[in-house]
Amino acid sequence: MTTAPRLEALQARIRRRGLDGFLVTQPDNRRYLSGYTACDHGIEETSGVLLIPARGTPLLLTDSRFILQAREEAAGYRVEQYRRGVIPLLEKLLPALSIRTLGFESHYILHATVLRMEKMARRIGCGLVPLSNLVEGMRIIKDREEIGRLRKAVLLNEQVFRLVHSTIEPGMTEREVALAIELTMRELGAERPAFDTIVAFAGNAARPHAVPGERELNTGDLVLIDMGLVLDGYCSDMTRTFIAGRPEKTFTERLRLVRRAQLAATAAIRPGAICRDVDRAARRVIADGGYGDLFGHALGHGVGLAVHEEPRLSPRSRKKLRPGMVVTVEPGIYLPGWGGIRLENMVVVGEEGCELLNRDTTGLDL
Amino acid sequence: MTTAPRLEALQARIRRRGLDGFLVTQPDNRRYLSGYTACDHGIEETSGVLLIPARGTPLLLTDSRFILQAREEAAGYRVEQYRRGVIPLLEKLLPALSIRTLGFESHYILHATVLRMEKMARRIGCGLVPLSNLVEGMRIIKDREEIGRLRKAVLLNEQVFRLVHSTIEPGMTEREVALAIELTMRELGAERPAFDTIVAFAGNAARPHAVPGERELNTGDLVLIDMGLVLDGYCSDMTRTFIAGRPEKTFTERLRLVRRAQLAATAAIRPGAICRDVDRAARRVIADGGYGDLFGHALGHGVGLAVHEEPRLSPRSRKKLRPGMVVTVEPGIYLPGWGGIRLENMVVVGEEGCELLNRDTTGLDL
Repeated sequence: MTTAPRLEALQARIRRRGLDGFLVTQPDNRRYLSGYTACDHGIEETSGVLLIPARGTPLLLTDSRFILQAREEAAGYRVEQYRRGVIPLLEKLLPALSIRTLGFESHYILHATVLRMEKMARRIGCGLVPLSNLVEGMRIIKDREEIGRLRKAVLLNEQVFRLVHSTIEPGMTEREVALAIELTMRELGAERPAFDTIVAFAGNAARPHAVPGERELNTGDLVLIDMGLVLDGYCSDMTRTFIAGRPEKTFTERLRLVRRAQLAATAAIRPGAICRDVDRAARRVIADGGYGDLFGHALGHGVGLAVHEEPRLSPRSRKKLRPGMVVTVEPGIYLPGWGGIRLENMVVVGEEGCELLNRDTTGLDL
Repeated sequence: MTTAPRLEALQARIRRRGLDGFLVTQPDNRRYLSGYTACDHGIEETSGVLLIPARGTPLLLTDSRFILQAREEAAGYRVEQYRRGVIPLLEKLLPALSIRTLGFESHYILHATVLRMEKMARRIGCGLVPLSNLVEGMRIIKDREEIGRLRKAVLLNEQVFRLVHSTIEPGMTEREVALAIELTMRELGAERPAFDTIVAFAGNAARPHAVPGERELNTGDLVLIDMGLVLDGYCSDMTRTFIAGRPEKTFTERLRLVRRAQLAATAAIRPGAICRDVDRAARRVIADGGYGDLFGHALGHGVGLAVHEEPRLSPRSRKKLRPGMVVTVEPGIYLPGWGGIRLENMVVVGEEGCELLNRDTTGLDL
């Protein structure tokens, strides 16, 4: 992965805003811009930040635990080590680099950290400028290489799903199925799950974010599986809902409704389409079917280095779709007591219309 | 788990600070105070917040995905659902609850979120007060039930370690060993790994936070395993370093040095001891052995609902140890090219001295 063009584009944005530098604290942005792959153990334990001057060599600041990895991976970066945290090192580097106005990622930095940075900045006479989503605005459009990686992640996801799907039988617990999925994905080369795998049987599927438990599968139970993996840094996200055994009529009718909503939304995805209109295309089908109140979440979200990123296909988003955006299409209905149905695919917005990244059709068409 | 006494203690703290309410955004604090176990998908995607008035019924605010789980788990809480995010709901609730000064967790809330909260608060005439570690200050002392859970987590951790340890043989890759560990912990009932398992062979162990790769184990290689799991919400954290085969003299000497440092530090842990003095007890042994520059991290950290929490056994911490604190003791030395040795146990500070939670001695004494 060559990060040089991304860095140039970012430095141009930094200059356009009249800043001398920009501090990158969001880990996916850090990887996108530098190739440095370390994961953070939550926002409180960073494995490093990028200090991007408006011109010239970018810097990666990290601690002794990651210094070797940083030097190997972050091509073109000057790697600096901090011993007492990022802020004391910034206090030295900012004046040395003549950075008098520094932008920072307000949307991915703790409030308490900014309070400490503000004290430091006052001491050295540096202005801090909160910004949001400067790099995310670049990441929203995927380049060819990124689409290739997303495609591979989706295909591996489907391979894992089908392998495990073929082994599901009455008596297995939700936890066992979830474990088999996470195991299989690791065995087949995924870095890790993109999120905690959801496996929900029967009434448990009424929770869109159900946690797999010790419930055993009975013949005739509804099964909802929402799974994602990370391959080469890029995420997949896919949901299937099916019956262990022979589906009865109520299920089939409801599934067909959700599937029609999914197809209607997919057909609405094209360059220039407004996100909330795509959401509405699905929502209208479900409302017309009489389940309008039971589709409580947004239709979909962008996927890339993060499993949830821009754009959001939500009832409120006025963003326009553009070629190279990659989104999920995942309508669902949830009936407390009965269960839930969600169907989720990933698509890439093309020059016209969109391309479905999924091939698997398990349970989609009854 | 009864959370009522914790809640009372927190409300007393809120009143002592002259606040009308307190907003809990940190997920471990949320679980500690409410029993609500949902995990967050990062700080950007909360599964709910607590709004604790200075007196009376506490509230849990969440969205449709988690509403059923919240109602089941958060005994004694009034559960409220938001559709457009937490802030619009707060705008309604704060005046209704007569909350005119609201404390919030500055150390676990995004800067951009606070900017939006400040706008909302101005509209309703509510003052916002940034606080840090109010609940963490309570969590630092573990009660009997918590120590019991930590003990169980450590014992399960050791069981998993020994099972996998007995299967390690030349030809296996770091990734395979890490996968076997994570699989085994899940099979034996752990919720999940407490952090990404570290398995590092030979030179790779020179990185304190090595990522398991495709390197195959050779006879005579050094093996460093740093693993933790979550059981019933509580974390374990343990590191062992050993040789696949017969250790040669250099390794044995270095291991003995690290072990002496660990024992010296453990002996220094008692109520009233200063954290940095405990760190120094280990650091002095390693420096006297000639490896002073190669122990680049702190000696240890608190463990509880979070795998890394207060207190820190670091060269700079002036905090005093008190009964009921649980900390790791994990000195290490790291030699680029050669490898690294780290040994990590968990101890609980008692009424006098401390109690070692670990039983496993694999590789500790050569």
